[in-house]
Amino acid sequence: MNYKMIGRYISLIIAVAGVFMLPAMILSFADGDAAVGRAFVYTMILSGAIAGVLIPLCKRPEKGFYAREGLLVVGVGWIVISLIGCLPFVISGAIPQFVDALFEIVSGFTTTGATILRDVEALPRGLLYWRSFSHWLGGMGVLVFLLAIAPAGGKSGFTIHLLRAESTGPNVGKLVPKMRKTAMILYVIYIALTVLDLIFLLFGGMPFFDAICTAFGTAGTGGFGVRNDSIAGYSTYIQGVCTVFMLLFGVSFTLFFMLLLRDFKGVVRNTELRMYLGIVAVSTAVMTFNIRGLYPTLFKAFHHAVFQVSSIMTTTGFATADFDKWPSLSKAILLVLMLVGACAGSTGGGFKCGRLLLLLKALRRNIHKTLHPQRVEVIQVDGQIIDEEVVSKTNAYLCAYVVIMILSFLAISIDGFSVTTNMSAVVACFNNIGPGLDMVGPVGTYADYSVFSKLVLIFDMLAGRLEIFPILILFSRSTWRRGGAN
Amino acid sequence: MNYKMIGRYISLIIAVAGVFMLPAMILSFADGDAAVGRAFVYTMILSGAIAGVLIPLCKRPEKGFYAREGLLVVGVGWIVISLIGCLPFVISGAIPQFVDALFEIVSGFTTTGATILRDVEALPRGLLYWRSFSHWLGGMGVLVFLLAIAPAGGKSGFTIHLLRAESTGPNVGKLVPKMRKTAMILYVIYIALTVLDLIFLLFGGMPFFDAICTAFGTAGTGGFGVRNDSIAGYSTYIQGVCTVFMLLFGVSFTLFFMLLLRDFKGVVRNTELRMYLGIVAVSTAVMTFNIRGLYPTLFKAFHHAVFQVSSIMTTTGFATADFDKWPSLSKAILLVLMLVGACAGSTGGGFKCGRLLLLLKALRRNIHKTLHPQRVEVIQVDGQIIDEEVVSKTNAYLCAYVVIMILSFLAISIDGFSVTTNMSAVVACFNNIGPGLDMVGPVGTYADYSVFSKLVLIFDMLAGRLEIFPILILFSRSTWRRGGAN
Repeated sequence: MNYKMIGRYISLIIAVAGVFMLPAMILSFADGDAAVGRAFVYTMILSGAIAGVLIPLCKRPEKGFYAREGLLVVGVGWIVISLIGCLPFVISGAIPQFVDALFEIVSGFTTTGATILRDVEALPRGLLYWRSFSHWLGGMGVLVFLLAIAPAGGKSGFTIHLLRAESTGPNVGKLVPKMRKTAMILYVIYIALTVLDLIFLLFGGMPFFDAICTAFGTAGTGGFGVRNDSIAGYSTYIQGVCTVFMLLFGVSFTLFFMLLLRDFKGVVRNTELRMYLGIVAVSTAVMTFNIRGLYPTLFKAFHHAVFQVSSIMTTTGFATADFDKWPSLSKAILLVLMLVGACAGSTGGGFKCGRLLLLLKALRRNIHKTLHPQRVEVIQVDGQIIDEEVVSKTNAYLCAYVVIMILSFLAISIDGFSVTTNMSAVVACFNNIGPGLDMVGPVGTYADYSVFSKLVLIFDMLAGRLEIFPILILFSRSTWRRGGAN
Repeated sequence: MNYKMIGRYISLIIAVAGVFMLPAMILSFADGDAAVGRAFVYTMILSGAIAGVLIPLCKRPEKGFYAREGLLVVGVGWIVISLIGCLPFVISGAIPQFVDALFEIVSGFTTTGATILRDVEALPRGLLYWRSFSHWLGGMGVLVFLLAIAPAGGKSGFTIHLLRAESTGPNVGKLVPKMRKTAMILYVIYIALTVLDLIFLLFGGMPFFDAICTAFGTAGTGGFGVRNDSIAGYSTYIQGVCTVFMLLFGVSFTLFFMLLLRDFKGVVRNTELRMYLGIVAVSTAVMTFNIRGLYPTLFKAFHHAVFQVSSIMTTTGFATADFDKWPSLSKAILLVLMLVGACAGSTGGGFKCGRLLLLLKALRRNIHKTLHPQRVEVIQVDGQIIDEEVVSKTNAYLCAYVVIMILSFLAISIDGFSVTTNMSAVVACFNNIGPGLDMVGPVGTYADYSVFSKLVLIFDMLAGRLEIFPILILFSRSTWRRGGAN
């Protein structure tokens, strides 16, 4: 195990977290929230100190850097950045309980958007900004960011493991041969889209602070808002802008890159994109019909339906209405969309359309195989043959996905809330959505869960965002056993 | 496609269904329920007529009989026997709506035990007997029965496909080289255990009619009772007998055969059995602790917990208490046990412990593979290497299992009942358990669902009992396409 290389990346993550607190700190002092500002200062000093000690210790790492190290850096790195990131909440006294603060910032970094706050508007702006910014950083990934700015690992062969471990979807590839350039392209597209979103929001008369936080929450498909009623209080135009950008950030970033290369045909023919938009369209149509009686006009019903479908499908979690009060069919659709999730290679969470597509193709192949045992069939997506290794890994993913959700559901049921509450809480956290149903619905909070349940849900959020394996291997004996690199 | 051979088996199934109605008919006339008796007579005449026409038509079938034909016979055969089996309810007027009667008898044959009746005790005894007997026949399988008594297909190589298609579990094998003898051994064990159960029940002073129906319901892991309060009204001794025999019928019948061969070591070391008993033990312990406050003594709490855990885990569905009123944790455990199900090769339903075991091993292998990409690892259960084909098929099974449950949940949500009702209804029907939670809890019924939802749940019960593929291939174009046998 290449501990020094792992240590180097971890210390860089800690340093980056500290640097990124600067705007929040300045905002806090500017607002006159000296206590909050000081909390950021102390945290930045701490992270600087840790990085300052660790970086010299991790000089001259060994050469080997494999999948195992990549997964470990991501798994440990995300835990560490969360532990640092929650300190301003605790030190400032805004969220006095450590586990609550950790829940809130993990919910931020993992772009979940589940909150333990009963009154979001009571939080000082510096902390609100930091909370929303954590969505943005977590959306594309802190290690992808590191790769984009600092060639710490050197060779592409090493760093592909990091990108693979932190990015979403079953089949992560490079956009261009050079790893660092791939990471840069991803972040440039990400920043450009975020800025575009911000401009559209400002154009609708949204206050600048609200607009930047909303843009962060949309870009990372996170869902933290700055108001207690989420997005419900803003104009129809602003809600419409959010709908469009949520949908955009749920699309694979590879497709945006293809657009830049003018490969329009490839984008239009992309099977995952068609599936994604198809599910959004059908769900919206059914839901509009289902809730038409609750709103004065059909357009209003459509407006809320398409917003909510986009918000849940992309795992953002913004709300314009209390969908917990909608009819059963609409609630059922939302619950199922929570599981499906956005496209692979986007900032969204969930199981991912791409994985579902792959598994459905594998299932169809298996039915054919049952009928015609002699026939050999490969699985193709967009004309490309999918490696059996990827199919097998996707199957294992489904298994881990189901098992983790079931065990988490059992664990948090100890608290005694309703079956719907517990089930939707796990689904909403593990798929990085945020609001669930019943007690944890759009107007509810996770505050009443016990410390144990909150820890379970923190695990779920991390496992969901990092797609299980980087977190799961932390619990595998095989990871910590001394031995060869493969 | 060997249509004549398929037709021959289907007509035999129809004939057998008619013959098996004889006891119910006699009982009806003896009780003075002439209308019910006549309903059985008409149905028997009809089934005799259909079989009489079909059998001569299907003479001299072709030689080829492959997996495809085996699956088709099972899929179509079960639909046909249900269509015949529900007629006595309709003709006698006891259940006037055809879809309701079909729901009830499919629930019987598939050993689900879900009912649309609000007052079970109002049903004449002849129909109660037929309802419970359908559990017994469906538990081990009507085609396995045919194989045991009539060597219709002739060679073992042909009929293994039938046994495979109708039996439960991922890896069905023969007990002895000869197919017919395997089927006979299975039925002899089945009959012996049923009789033993009956004796124990009679010993506790249970009325003979109640005892035989309860024994049928236990043996098939079905769950239809003859009283409105299921098993709650009987003595603690009788409830205890039910607990023990439900657990026994949830065990793979291969193990009973091993016991007969005095291979005690093999039984004790069986991993699936250990997993099954382990889950029962842990669930019972936690649940006893969780419901201890609801009962006067710890023993009473244990008694109800172990009964309910056994009933749900084996997918029987008997109830001694309204567990819908138990605390969330207990409800959550029961909901999860519904998914897990009994052992492969038993009469129980659900996903099966054996499949879960296989998938967890595959998942562990995948984690190892992520850490050490070069290492090659096989999956072993009980010292035997599992074929990769079986692993891949089990993965496809999980995928189909999840997709069918999700789509069914969406479909029946149209009716507007609660999320918990709809979710548990699908889980309880698809896993052949019977009672769910909320409206379809142990004291509720499925009567209020719409015709459409009932059809969806009928599909789920059949797909669950036949382990998806025999039903799924009926919807595959590839099945009906003309062409070679493989």
